Amino acid sequence: MPYEIGDKFKDECGVFGVFLNEPEDETDAASTAFYGLYALQHRGQESAGIAVSNGHKINLHKGMGLVTDVIKPDIIKQLKGNIAVAHVRYSTTGESGIVNAQPMVFHYLQGMLGIAHNGNLTNTIELRKQLATYGSVFQTTTDTELVANLLARYSQDKLEDGLTKCMIDLKGAFALIIITEDRMVGVRDQMGIRPLCLGDYEGSYVLASESAALDTIGAKFIRDMKPGEIVIIDKNGLKSSQVVNSPRCAHCVFEYIYFARPDSTLDGINVYQARRELGKQLARECNIDADMVISVPDSGTAAALGYGEESGLPFQDGLMKNRYVGRTFIQPTQSMRELSVRLKLNAVGKIVSGKKLIMVDDSIVRGTTSKQIVQMLRDAGAKEVHMAVSSPPTSYPCYYGIDTSRREELIASKLGVEEIRQFIGADSLNYLSREGMFKALGGNSEKYCDACFSGFYPVGVES
Amino acid sequence: MPYEIGDKFKDECGVFGVFLNEPEDETDAASTAFYGLYALQHRGQESAGIAVSNGHKINLHKGMGLVTDVIKPDIIKQLKGNIAVAHVRYSTTGESGIVNAQPMVFHYLQGMLGIAHNGNLTNTIELRKQLATYGSVFQTTTDTELVANLLARYSQDKLEDGLTKCMIDLKGAFALIIITEDRMVGVRDQMGIRPLCLGDYEGSYVLASESAALDTIGAKFIRDMKPGEIVIIDKNGLKSSQVVNSPRCAHCVFEYIYFARPDSTLDGINVYQARRELGKQLARECNIDADMVISVPDSGTAAALGYGEESGLPFQDGLMKNRYVGRTFIQPTQSMRELSVRLKLNAVGKIVSGKKLIMVDDSIVRGTTSKQIVQMLRDAGAKEVHMAVSSPPTSYPCYYGIDTSRREELIASKLGVEEIRQFIGADSLNYLSREGMFKALGGNSEKYCDACFSGFYPVGVES
Amino acid sequence: MPYEIGDKFKDECGVFGVFLNEPEDETDAASTAFYGLYALQHRGQESAGIAVSNGHKINLHKGMGLVTDVIKPDIIKQLKGNIAVAHVRYSTTGESGIVNAQPMVFHYLQGMLGIAHNGNLTNTIELRKQLATYGSVFQTTTDTELVANLLARYSQDKLEDGLTKCMIDLKGAFALIIITEDRMVGVRDQMGIRPLCLGDYEGSYVLASESAALDTIGAKFIRDMKPGEIVIIDKNGLKSSQVVNSPRCAHCVFEYIYFARPDSTLDGINVYQARRELGKQLARECNIDADMVISVPDSGTAAALGYGEESGLPFQDGLMKNRYVGRTFIQPTQSMRELSVRLKLNAVGKIVSGKKLIMVDDSIVRGTTSKQIVQMLRDAGAKEVHMAVSSPPTSYPCYYGIDTSRREELIASKLGVEEIRQFIGADSLNYLSREGMFKALGGNSEKYCDACFSGFYPVGVES
Amino acid sequence: MPYEIGDKFKDECGVFGVFLNEPEDETDAASTAFYGLYALQHRGQESAGIAVSNGHKINLHKGMGLVTDVIKPDIIKQLKGNIAVAHVRYSTTGESGIVNAQPMVFHYLQGMLGIAHNGNLTNTIELRKQLATYGSVFQTTTDTELVANLLARYSQDKLEDGLTKCMIDLKGAFALIIITEDRMVGVRDQMGIRPLCLGDYEGSYVLASESAALDTIGAKFIRDMKPGEIVIIDKNGLKSSQVVNSPRCAHCVFEYIYFARPDSTLDGINVYQARRELGKQLARECNIDADMVISVPDSGTAAALGYGEESGLPFQDGLMKNRYVGRTFIQPTQSMRELSVRLKLNAVGKIVSGKKLIMVDDSIVRGTTSKQIVQMLRDAGAKEVHMAVSSPPTSYPCYYGIDTSRREELIASKLGVEEIRQFIGADSLNYLSREGMFKALGGNSEKYCDACFSGFYPVGVES
Repeated sequence: MPYEIGDKFKDECGVFGVFLNEPEDETDAASTAFYGLYALQHRGQESAGIAVSNGHKINLHKGMGLVTDVIKPDIIKQLKGNIAVAHVRYSTTGESGIVNAQPMVFHYLQGMLGIAHNGNLTNTIELRKQLATYGSVFQTTTDTELVANLLARYSQDKLEDGLTKCMIDLKGAFALIIITEDRMVGVRDQMGIRPLCLGDYEGSYVLASESAALDTIGAKFIRDMKPGEIVIIDKNGLKSSQVVNSPRCAHCVFEYIYFARPDSTLDGINVYQARRELGKQLARECNIDADMVISVPDSGTAAALGYGEESGLPFQDGLMKNRYVGRTFIQPTQSMRELSVRLKLNAVGKIVSGKKLIMVDDSIVRGTTSKQIVQMLRDAGAKEVHMAVSSPPTSYPCYYGIDTSRREELIASKLGVEEIRQFIGADSLNYLSREGMFKALGGNSEKYCDACFSGFYPVGVES
Repeated sequence: MPYEIGDKFKDECGVFGVFLNEPEDETDAASTAFYGLYALQHRGQESAGIAVSNGHKINLHKGMGLVTDVIKPDIIKQLKGNIAVAHVRYSTTGESGIVNAQPMVFHYLQGMLGIAHNGNLTNTIELRKQLATYGSVFQTTTDTELVANLLARYSQDKLEDGLTKCMIDLKGAFALIIITEDRMVGVRDQMGIRPLCLGDYEGSYVLASESAALDTIGAKFIRDMKPGEIVIIDKNGLKSSQVVNSPRCAHCVFEYIYFARPDSTLDGINVYQARRELGKQLARECNIDADMVISVPDSGTAAALGYGEESGLPFQDGLMKNRYVGRTFIQPTQSMRELSVRLKLNAVGKIVSGKKLIMVDDSIVRGTTSKQIVQMLRDAGAKEVHMAVSSPPTSYPCYYGIDTSRREELIASKLGVEEIRQFIGADSLNYLSREGMFKALGGNSEKYCDACFSGFYPVGVES
Repeated sequence: MPYEIGDKFKDECGVFGVFLNEPEDETDAASTAFYGLYALQHRGQESAGIAVSNGHKINLHKGMGLVTDVIKPDIIKQLKGNIAVAHVRYSTTGESGIVNAQPMVFHYLQGMLGIAHNGNLTNTIELRKQLATYGSVFQTTTDTELVANLLARYSQDKLEDGLTKCMIDLKGAFALIIITEDRMVGVRDQMGIRPLCLGDYEGSYVLASESAALDTIGAKFIRDMKPGEIVIIDKNGLKSSQVVNSPRCAHCVFEYIYFARPDSTLDGINVYQARRELGKQLARECNIDADMVISVPDSGTAAALGYGEESGLPFQDGLMKNRYVGRTFIQPTQSMRELSVRLKLNAVGKIVSGKKLIMVDDSIVRGTTSKQIVQMLRDAGAKEVHMAVSSPPTSYPCYYGIDTSRREELIASKLGVEEIRQFIGADSLNYLSREGMFKALGGNSEKYCDACFSGFYPVGVES
Repeated sequence: MPYEIGDKFKDECGVFGVFLNEPEDETDAASTAFYGLYALQHRGQESAGIAVSNGHKINLHKGMGLVTDVIKPDIIKQLKGNIAVAHVRYSTTGESGIVNAQPMVFHYLQGMLGIAHNGNLTNTIELRKQLATYGSVFQTTTDTELVANLLARYSQDKLEDGLTKCMIDLKGAFALIIITEDRMVGVRDQMGIRPLCLGDYEGSYVLASESAALDTIGAKFIRDMKPGEIVIIDKNGLKSSQVVNSPRCAHCVFEYIYFARPDSTLDGINVYQARRELGKQLARECNIDADMVISVPDSGTAAALGYGEESGLPFQDGLMKNRYVGRTFIQPTQSMRELSVRLKLNAVGKIVSGKKLIMVDDSIVRGTTSKQIVQMLRDAGAKEVHMAVSSPPTSYPCYYGIDTSRREELIASKLGVEEIRQFIGADSLNYLSREGMFKALGGNSEKYCDACFSGFYPVGVES
């Protein structure tokens, strides 16, 4: 994520779909999808793509890079039709590269399919083997292609029935948007791990990973899709089926802590307010004597403001971010060791010098960046640097669509809190408790997947 | 074809494969494939690609553009392994664009497949429908993907048996090179419509569309693959099976007339010598009074030299070609109508002024370019311009892998020879006779497919 | 400025220079200049360049685009030497395009010159005419080329003397860094309109438009250059001359309000603290009844935090910024009018709904963006929207290096405050008073140029 | 020169200018210049550019690469006006890179100048020093910028008078096209070393390095410019002045042997016919017993055809050229030594096997390529390979605008003919005699510069 300070969990994917009833212009679906996708850019910067159906055929354009690099105006002009599905990707499974970019378009017995997927299936080895035995070939390592082959296997059934059978076969986290020549389908896994919501765009339906994408195009939020729900939208309107029922749901708690846009509301909770509450709860648990609260921008700012509010300490911009951080860098020479953080952040001496600081961040992955920031603050004259983290230690990998890197890279999987404090060189280090986290999120720990903190995986994982 | 004067049949595809027994360097297979492909550039300028197996996995790189644009040195470095298959493409079936570029790589029950194909299947609609009924999905409109799905359908069989079954199912023209993790396979259709030959590269096997590719890498020509033959090459050597037998073969006659490199020898006949013979035969049939023979460079030059030799008339470079013809042009303004030919060719007044010319070309497609050249020669002072064509009138479309455009664009499908002469404005127009053409090619018309001239299609075509 | 919400004054230029006494590596000067320039990216995104002297020759690389796009690692490798000057540009005078990019390198009687310039000369017509009369030719419309020709005119003198004569000839705003084969020169105009400071980088000297560039490379701030000062740095150290004396200085007040990085300290005042003070003063002057303070991110945030602090109202992120705003956009369709602001900002309904808001921004240029934001907040349910601007109305163009567009585009040059309020649709509109602005900046209005607010131009302008 | 077999003298530059009296469309001058330049592409492939005057201002576009890469249709649209000057460049003096690309545009006392130059001045050190003493600065190392500064020095004079003074100051080879806001000027050095001709384009004047450029745009050849002539074209027509007179002229003989397009006629002699005559004369001098004549394509072909005609031996295409030779290559692995020639050429075994060959080429520079070709022919079965060169040994460097590399790289400067024969491995080696060369070119050796063969330099060179 180019514009974020390093050492963060990498993003996953974002999906967006639109079914226009009466487009004014034949490229309206494509341009609506472009703007929706643009609003989801934070969910994946590796590749982008849009597939559009004109009633007879699905046309596709995708490429490596940011949405505005890939989907140029002259591309939009060629994507005519009233149904569109779009995708931004950060590779979580499958290899990187254009071959795995989404959406993907397939011809099968009943016509064409355009599929965009966010999440990660946990029984792919088994499913791919099964399908290959019947003669399927795979050109990629994506879950999307697997879903298409599975659906084609049931192609003698009606689409609704095929989708129902698929949902029973698929394990793991998935938020899918599928278009055919004349329909748009939304599918959410039975625990609702990854988000997907439904909106009303001037009388037409849209689907999006986050509600902020609805705001961007000027659509109204209708509701979140339910775990285990399939919606099929065609010219006659929307038909919903509750295909599988699960005793509990398991919304990803990290969407609130870091991934989602602060202006999105997911499954009833506004992300910015959740972060502010996490910061307030953190203040209640910490109780540290300091002169001011500062944040590691931008991801720690909402929690830092909450911390300030609850503790009564002033919030100050002690760390300034260079807003032009690009994606390619020259390797610093030996005399510029640890320069990379300074290129992105600057500690403002006039603010922090001689002060006792509480520095709030949303999480710690490897700890190396935190260590450099603490040192930079000390170099700028800070008297004390207390680090406060608005989530518990991240000790376990995610198998549901987030790139947590390998477990051995997570500092909290190897070291205790005091050891981490020593490593990053802070005067104190406080993580939010699991109880505190759930309290800030409304109190019901049963609603969430927090496997990265607890190691409790709500859906079984292939070993 | 950027470096050829317009109004030509478009090229088709070129394939190249190599199985190195003991590579000195782990990128030798990829770089050999690069050089082989480079030698086949004239067979397709739309896209290029190389797939390489390292014994465990097949890695692929492909892209739009010329071989040297797509396969850069840093790409080669990443393509490690001892077995490679490569492809250049000019789309004949399927849509243009990267999604249809080759080779394609597939995972199936038995592992991986890398496939490159030259030709055109004539029963794809039936085969695709059949495969879809069993659950196959297609991501492209290429024959290559169809071949992979068909092979996967037989994946419970041994590869040899699966290939044999495929060859029985597939109708039309196909020269296929397939690699698996540890083998290279060559397949040629039962009539041998498209060329494919086998070479010895320092003790290892190579396969190529044309023998010139063997020369370029310094390999020795072993033999042409036989119609209906499958060869499987692995670390134990080469195994050949003659799977289907056909009462006749049907080598594409246009390979000799225009497509193939003059320095290639296909199915026993050297292309340059064939063209020179076509020119000689043309001279025997024409018997025109003139001062000199000129050619439309470069495709007409070999025949023009042959014409000159047989007729005793001097050959002169009356038309000069601009060797830097690029691929993108500004639309000429109104005052520069018909400029496009002048950008590529120039009539040399000092040579042609006041002379009676015989202008030799290999074929006429739409006739518009010939018309402009004749006018340009007259403007330069030519007294008479007699056009002589070293093949018969092309009146019928090709269904075996050559882009002849639609039938209505072929001037000879609508107009008689005298009408064509009037259209192009020549003083006389002579085509080579079918009999003369076969005589120049060794006398046996039964060996060749000349459907584009005769309308007689050796393999049935889906209607 | 891609990452800022539209309708802002455009930036100007940034300059950076380094003279390394004993570089460890021969590309250290170039890479130091790269990092320094990177820290000044906000001052110009149109072009970037670095010129490096190796003692004998000055080599140059420049191009259109951001620093990281233009100065790639392989470029740095070729820029060997111990003296470097670098430049980022947003065109203020002269035409856009590579021909006007800086630094520029010149051969003259005494050897070579590399020049980077920030500012705008106000007597160029006269100077260019004078020089042309003596035989000078100009290849660009930049001030930089004019400075080089003027210096060459005095090339029979010693460099110090030539520079002194130049400074007497040049009128307007200029912060110049010049390198020769073996020296680095810094020059600041006699009123100190544009900033330029001196730093100590591990015992070597650096020059930069802003102190944040010193922090980024790890250099220590020594002092700001004095108005009318020339410093010449060579292997024997630094020599300063106070060439011209002015009864007053005239530091650009807009550097504090909007242009400079918040973490820079210019002529003794930290920019972030200045903005916070401007916000506090604004609160004192406004006295509006509201539920919360929000800012137009990012430029209004420091002032908004100051406003909140002074007024006791809570600061909230009612407007969220999409951090991925790129530089090229598809034109929205008719049904998406005024979408462009929504692509960059989103009003968070959960925060602003039903609330009385004070929205703080640093300035208003044309007013169109403010109008759209106010409407967006009302659409999100805001009960009242009061706009507060942390500077006076901008009614006059700048002639000293800032692109204020033409005067007729400045809304405050045509409309009174109440009319502007009506145009933007706010419930109230308050600008900071001139007196309040100077109070927040330390009280001495004599130190600053505030011509864009007052119309009082400290240096005469060619008519 | 990408499409030519390596080891050739590098090209120089090409210039083209047009003054349209009554353009139909305001981009006609630019598009005419584009087509004219395109026809001169063989004279320089490094950079291309066009400058156009609209009567008030000269606009310029230039860039690195081929004409069609640099001058795209959307560029033409922006180049409005009726006077254009264009340039293709292969750097001979000055450094490579965009900074030295031409045309160059200058502002001077009387307005603007657009200048394109082909050739090389031989007194630049002296002139630059003189100009610098008076205050000139130089941004490049090109002759073009020097010419502009010299002209500006005389800017108090009328243009005609300034040009006359310039011509007296300038030494060496130069063919210049200069445009002002309302005039086009052509200048040719006093010995006429580099070519420049005048044409009539539908009643308007054009200037071009070669007549083939006139043919391409459909203009009529009027005459070659005379050595020492200046022509000034404005709305009142053409005015010629014979400024300097020289006792002799000195047309570059290598233009006929290799550089110019075969379809150009320079100073009264058609290049193709000259090459054919050189080949005939070579046959008369050689008298070798052989089976056939072959050429090293494409540069040796005209001479080879002449050789065949004179000797009565048949001409055959024994060496085939790959028409797709691109500009970037992977370095061949060790096992592919000397592959580079095979990528470009292929010896056709069916033609050369068992035969005694005469291989004709236009010149030998380093000899390495000839050596590889001879070996390739032997590998293909040739019985004897006799090399015949249609020019004398090139033993001396050129100082008049051709990149002959350094003298020590010229094999003929170090070795005698028999030693060269041994190096290249031919059965015999014959060069054309100087006398024979002049005989083929019309007999008058006084008309030509043949310094590269004789070491006799017609104009003094700065030491």
